[in-house]
Amino acid sequence: MTDLARTSDHVAALRALLGERSVLIGSDMAGYEAGARHSGGRAAFVMRPRTTADASAAVAYCVRHKIHIVPQAGNTGVVGASTPDATGTQAVMSVELLVAPWELDLENRSVHCGAGLRLSELNARLEPHGLFFPIDLGSDPQVGGMLSTNTGGSRFLKYGDVRRNTLGATVVLADGEGTVLDLSSHLRKNNVGVDWKHIFIGSAGAFGVITEAVLSLERRPRQSAVAILVPSNGESMLPLLLALEDDIGPFLSAFEGMSRESIVETIAHQPTIRSPFSGRTVPDYSILCEITRNWDPREDELPISEMLEQSIARVWETGLIEDAVFGPPEEIWRLRHTISEAVRLAGNLVAFDLAFRRSDLMPFLARMRKDLGKDLPDIRVCDFGHLGDGGVHFNLVVPSVGGQPLDPNFERELRDRVYRIAVEEFGGSFSAEHAIGRKNQRYYDAFTPAAVVDVATAVKAAIAPGAIGAARYHRALNPPVPQS
Amino acid sequence: MTDLARTSDHVAALRALLGERSVLIGSDMAGYEAGARHSGGRAAFVMRPRTTADASAAVAYCVRHKIHIVPQAGNTGVVGASTPDATGTQAVMSVELLVAPWELDLENRSVHCGAGLRLSELNARLEPHGLFFPIDLGSDPQVGGMLSTNTGGSRFLKYGDVRRNTLGATVVLADGEGTVLDLSSHLRKNNVGVDWKHIFIGSAGAFGVITEAVLSLERRPRQSAVAILVPSNGESMLPLLLALEDDIGPFLSAFEGMSRESIVETIAHQPTIRSPFSGRTVPDYSILCEITRNWDPREDELPISEMLEQSIARVWETGLIEDAVFGPPEEIWRLRHTISEAVRLAGNLVAFDLAFRRSDLMPFLARMRKDLGKDLPDIRVCDFGHLGDGGVHFNLVVPSVGGQPLDPNFERELRDRVYRIAVEEFGGSFSAEHAIGRKNQRYYDAFTPAAVVDVATAVKAAIAPGAIGAARYHRALNPPVPQS
Repeated sequence: MTDLARTSDHVAALRALLGERSVLIGSDMAGYEAGARHSGGRAAFVMRPRTTADASAAVAYCVRHKIHIVPQAGNTGVVGASTPDATGTQAVMSVELLVAPWELDLENRSVHCGAGLRLSELNARLEPHGLFFPIDLGSDPQVGGMLSTNTGGSRFLKYGDVRRNTLGATVVLADGEGTVLDLSSHLRKNNVGVDWKHIFIGSAGAFGVITEAVLSLERRPRQSAVAILVPSNGESMLPLLLALEDDIGPFLSAFEGMSRESIVETIAHQPTIRSPFSGRTVPDYSILCEITRNWDPREDELPISEMLEQSIARVWETGLIEDAVFGPPEEIWRLRHTISEAVRLAGNLVAFDLAFRRSDLMPFLARMRKDLGKDLPDIRVCDFGHLGDGGVHFNLVVPSVGGQPLDPNFERELRDRVYRIAVEEFGGSFSAEHAIGRKNQRYYDAFTPAAVVDVATAVKAAIAPGAIGAARYHRALNPPVPQS
Repeated sequence: MTDLARTSDHVAALRALLGERSVLIGSDMAGYEAGARHSGGRAAFVMRPRTTADASAAVAYCVRHKIHIVPQAGNTGVVGASTPDATGTQAVMSVELLVAPWELDLENRSVHCGAGLRLSELNARLEPHGLFFPIDLGSDPQVGGMLSTNTGGSRFLKYGDVRRNTLGATVVLADGEGTVLDLSSHLRKNNVGVDWKHIFIGSAGAFGVITEAVLSLERRPRQSAVAILVPSNGESMLPLLLALEDDIGPFLSAFEGMSRESIVETIAHQPTIRSPFSGRTVPDYSILCEITRNWDPREDELPISEMLEQSIARVWETGLIEDAVFGPPEEIWRLRHTISEAVRLAGNLVAFDLAFRRSDLMPFLARMRKDLGKDLPDIRVCDFGHLGDGGVHFNLVVPSVGGQPLDPNFERELRDRVYRIAVEEFGGSFSAEHAIGRKNQRYYDAFTPAAVVDVATAVKAAIAPGAIGAARYHRALNPPVPQS
């Protein structure tokens, strides 16, 4: 906790450490206080170190002065993990200027870079080499935030998550020394003790600030083919995925489900998007299926679009497919990538980032549609997602009455209900790829086993006692003393 | 520390907890005291819990009575991570009877199983479903040991390591309660706080005993083709790998280097193995290159052997290949898998399990050959390994004088020299896939940054204060009090 009188002292001291323009106050902080999709808070000040050493000095200063640090990268997250709370006492540490080093190793297919590098900039630099970082997202985060949330994206099925594509990281621990942990291995195989980088990946700044990363790179696809598949019914969705994995697995790069409601709302609210089912009824569920090859077309191979058609023809014989629509890949992907913004225009959106065993996903969706249809028939379920890895963006659109926002109590009850069913009845995840922030802290607290919270609390006290992060994985560090 | 008088009390107490036959003493312990390739130690007793609950009770008992536990699974490791030391005071906890549950989820492509299940048994149960756990090894470990060492194997290039193929784990922490951490997620996407399973994977029992695992499964290959490629010289090795990755990447499942010396010694000492170069000189370096498909042959595709031939023909134009030899896959793999035992017959073996950036591997090998050739010309470098992921089994064969074992001081100096160059000059790993045990503890202590040891020490004290594991990642828990 810091009082206002002392804030200016802190700013002066940190400016002496980091440089004048590296500590922002007043209206310069606006962009760092507001998050991508939620009301922001207020920061005491914003630090922008340019190097790991500067980040270390600033973290040490803050921890010693008991200033709560909220690490921030691209600030594109949606769960309130990268913005300060409303108290005005938390200091944001933005890594946006921390873009060095840039050490590209083509033979190792890896790059050592700063946490502030944008995904778009990273991929632009890699494109001339035929490489990319294979996390496909609608937003444009920075590297540090991608590691902190361990995001997945639309090509998870083929490439996995950020964790799988991270070789090393450099971290400043939230302790009084701002200890630098150099875990910047460039190695693909390295089992020399505990691999500590994993406690920082996906944990939203729980123990420190990620300042640099070593990323594994993939060859950029050179050809792709896309089709929209209509499964014969909800039960055939997963057998269809399994059949395609058996038939054409190494080429399969996306298997993205889109509910009828999500397509209908997107077409209704985004006039540039046309229905792929031109004129016909939009089916209950359809699947964006993509295959890619990372080489140029060859004479001795089937053209990739024919390859996809033939695979679909083989799988068709199983009776799992009712219809298949082919079209320009860009147009089909544009529909898919537009859904998440379009459903926001359809009413008051209550969005969930869930994941299940692949076998549990469709049963969960059927169950929720039935349940909600009974009690709350006005709510539209506009779900879409990454069926190949069990992830679903489960979106509930509540009709907006006179443009009014949702009653917070109603929203909380709705969230509690959905999460309870997803987690307790279906063993699902309440945060598949968005990690934990203030917006879903309540569910971490509700669903995390006591033994896991105990471990987090003990480890935090042991290695990172300073107040850091918007999320809280540990029990309160200073719980009220029980009355005896 | 336990004294002999009390050992029988402990055995009686643990038998009351676990059952009579679940605690072994005397000559029944022999198989648990000796390791696969190193002189074993002596155990106080051996515990064999059948369930996680039993493991928890036994761990709690041992921690409360200050008995050092050494977890053991298949005991196939080669660094002394799974056997007791020579004091006779450490208790082995074998998970071999902990084979339940067996929960196979075909749609999710995952299985929840006990830590004592053998890899061969796991794959035998999966074969009827066309699935396998894609870690390809010469030995036959149990699941718990595979997680504890995070092994890689010969198909790492395609499937990655054990970590990448592990969805969840159940762990008994080395604390006075034997706390059970249920991290047995079946989810592929799940970012709900710190993903704690990762501090147990690859860390050789540092904090507790892995009792169950949830593994991700892969489709079993249905076709394969293998060739031995002779690169035009040492410098063309990595460009050749890159060219093949560009040309045929999704099918490439192995790119295994074999030095001339390793092949020559294998042929010399294993009469059933024939040279693939029939009559011709064995080249300085050759590569086992394998591609696989996980479907049956199809009429509209090139036969897989032709596919490999055509890919090699395309790459041949780059001038990187001098020769290519085709042959029965089984025969070529038999050569490759026999090397590691055959080189043991060639003299006194000093073996290293190293990994580098892919770009550093061949320069390291060239440097070592030159260095050793100058000072120790009698030593033969019989290296082979997983070039695709930077890993190399760097084997030095020292001529045996009159069947005498190596002078331990000479061996230690040799090891120190190789490791120093590998780690300090080339930034390599001194344990690529064997993890840490008593045999390479010295190098953990020498090469691990102080800040990393501090983290390990603090975390150990915080969550797993009991003495556990053959490896020691932390500073001594009770260091001598400095004289003031």
